[in-house]
Amino acid sequence: MNDPLPMRGVLAPVVTPFTAELQPDLGRLIGHCHWLLGHDCGLAVFGTNSEGNSLAVEEKIELLNGLVAAGIDPARMMPGTGCCALPDTVRLTSHAVSLGCGGVLMLPPFYYKGVSDEGLYRAVAEVIERVGEAALRIYLYHIPPVAQVGFSLDLIERLITDFPGTIAGIKDSSGDWDNTKAMLDRFPGWGVFAGNETVLLETLRHGGMGCISATCNINAPDIVALARHWREDGARERQAACTALRARVQAYPMIPALKGVIAHFADDPDWRRMRPPLVALDDAATAALGRELEAAGFAMPGIAAR
Amino acid sequence: MNDPLPMRGVLAPVVTPFTAELQPDLGRLIGHCHWLLGHDCGLAVFGTNSEGNSLAVEEKIELLNGLVAAGIDPARMMPGTGCCALPDTVRLTSHAVSLGCGGVLMLPPFYYKGVSDEGLYRAVAEVIERVGEAALRIYLYHIPPVAQVGFSLDLIERLITDFPGTIAGIKDSSGDWDNTKAMLDRFPGWGVFAGNETVLLETLRHGGMGCISATCNINAPDIVALARHWREDGARERQAACTALRARVQAYPMIPALKGVIAHFADDPDWRRMRPPLVALDDAATAALGRELEAAGFAMPGIAAR
Repeated sequence: MNDPLPMRGVLAPVVTPFTAELQPDLGRLIGHCHWLLGHDCGLAVFGTNSEGNSLAVEEKIELLNGLVAAGIDPARMMPGTGCCALPDTVRLTSHAVSLGCGGVLMLPPFYYKGVSDEGLYRAVAEVIERVGEAALRIYLYHIPPVAQVGFSLDLIERLITDFPGTIAGIKDSSGDWDNTKAMLDRFPGWGVFAGNETVLLETLRHGGMGCISATCNINAPDIVALARHWREDGARERQAACTALRARVQAYPMIPALKGVIAHFADDPDWRRMRPPLVALDDAATAALGRELEAAGFAMPGIAAR
Repeated sequence: MNDPLPMRGVLAPVVTPFTAELQPDLGRLIGHCHWLLGHDCGLAVFGTNSEGNSLAVEEKIELLNGLVAAGIDPARMMPGTGCCALPDTVRLTSHAVSLGCGGVLMLPPFYYKGVSDEGLYRAVAEVIERVGEAALRIYLYHIPPVAQVGFSLDLIERLITDFPGTIAGIKDSSGDWDNTKAMLDRFPGWGVFAGNETVLLETLRHGGMGCISATCNINAPDIVALARHWREDGARERQAACTALRARVQAYPMIPALKGVIAHFADDPDWRRMRPPLVALDDAATAALGRELEAAGFAMPGIAAR
């Protein structure tokens, strides 16, 4: 197996469609991954916006197998593999590496709160040792607003120092640009991804790799274009347009809204299904959001209608 | 299978020993369960203090099987079965019911924060429907300081109303006596357990069932005696002594301290091992805590020395 190249650019935490029985819907997921890749957007499956933590380890392994079997390039995939329990994280991470995934996006164990940097260091180090693969590329997943447990700058430095290459980067979903900038300043050339596209231009200007953002599930074309043309005239305007689109969606609960927008533009209402504890948008909210985006000139070019 | 009797009295969230390879140590766990049952303390295995969320579903199933095979009475067991992902919760809960466990202690799905009561209702309702067993007895696990997601009084009422008998009770680990009292007042005769023994006497005086408390792992004899003699003279003094012991332990991080105390009194230093992200007490802290408890007259009668 070749060592993965560093990942860069724009990735979507791919939303996960469900069947009427609330099982993962591989067919619709493959279709959505093709749409994203067709717009040059990478695949951070099993992220927060994927309802990744509402999926069992076995389900994620089956989905990964199904995506690769369907011809999805694993090098463009950065599956979320960080679970609460060490054996689950090891099992899922090992499987992702064995399939040739370009990287994994790793939450810290997130049940216990107020844990020490020493404990989190050991959690990551144990995974690296047990997986035992030179091709492993870990992107740390820093999302304290949800996980409550995160990676301090000192902990990141210790991990990079002790596992160079393996600790390949981070997704900073702190929602705090000062924190992202501190990472970019302290770890130049390292794989820092912004957690959303509202700071994509700033991230790239400061040497970051790109962004991994919920809204890429629907607005991949514009966000990828911003990442591709960030040095050119008009980048500021592209950034403003992406930020404005995100703000419209954020008026609704994010994950149900993303599925609602796909359902609207693909004319496929079943796309809206969510696993509990999350709840789908209802008909009225879906229609209102769809109309609002259409009125703003938004479209999802090439999205498959049923 | 007979329907389980309501659980009452005192239960320990049984701490989980690990081998040098950080695998669950069934032998030591069986020994500790026998010690607890010998003091009439029930077994809430896989709770927060069990590092339950650091164990994979398969590990918990194997441990349950091993405990029952060792002759531990499943009717005295209330395993934690609430996971982030619906299929995991269903699988573990079904297994516990099939073994004849007296109840299950169910965390809400805890990754996503700020979820609605409607979403949490659906999460619990889906589990009940999918498990599909009349013998299922769910004790809701309300621990917002750790899980961040909890059960509101209105949600509890809706669940009790729609699933009478099945929604058998709650462990209130809010740390807020006013909340426990509100549950006792609003749901008289329902299975309310205090989350720690500092309010055990008050809980019993207000019609509660007992407590499920970390410190029972070491102080089961005194806490059980308080629950048994709460109507008698001296109950206030028993309560004060239990509360004082807990305060001594709480000067250290709770879960490592519990294992350290067992290690000290059983003369078995390997008992201290923790899975990351939690970190064991070191030699000095273990010795200091042990000496302090001995000086206060504390003992663990019958704890097996190596």
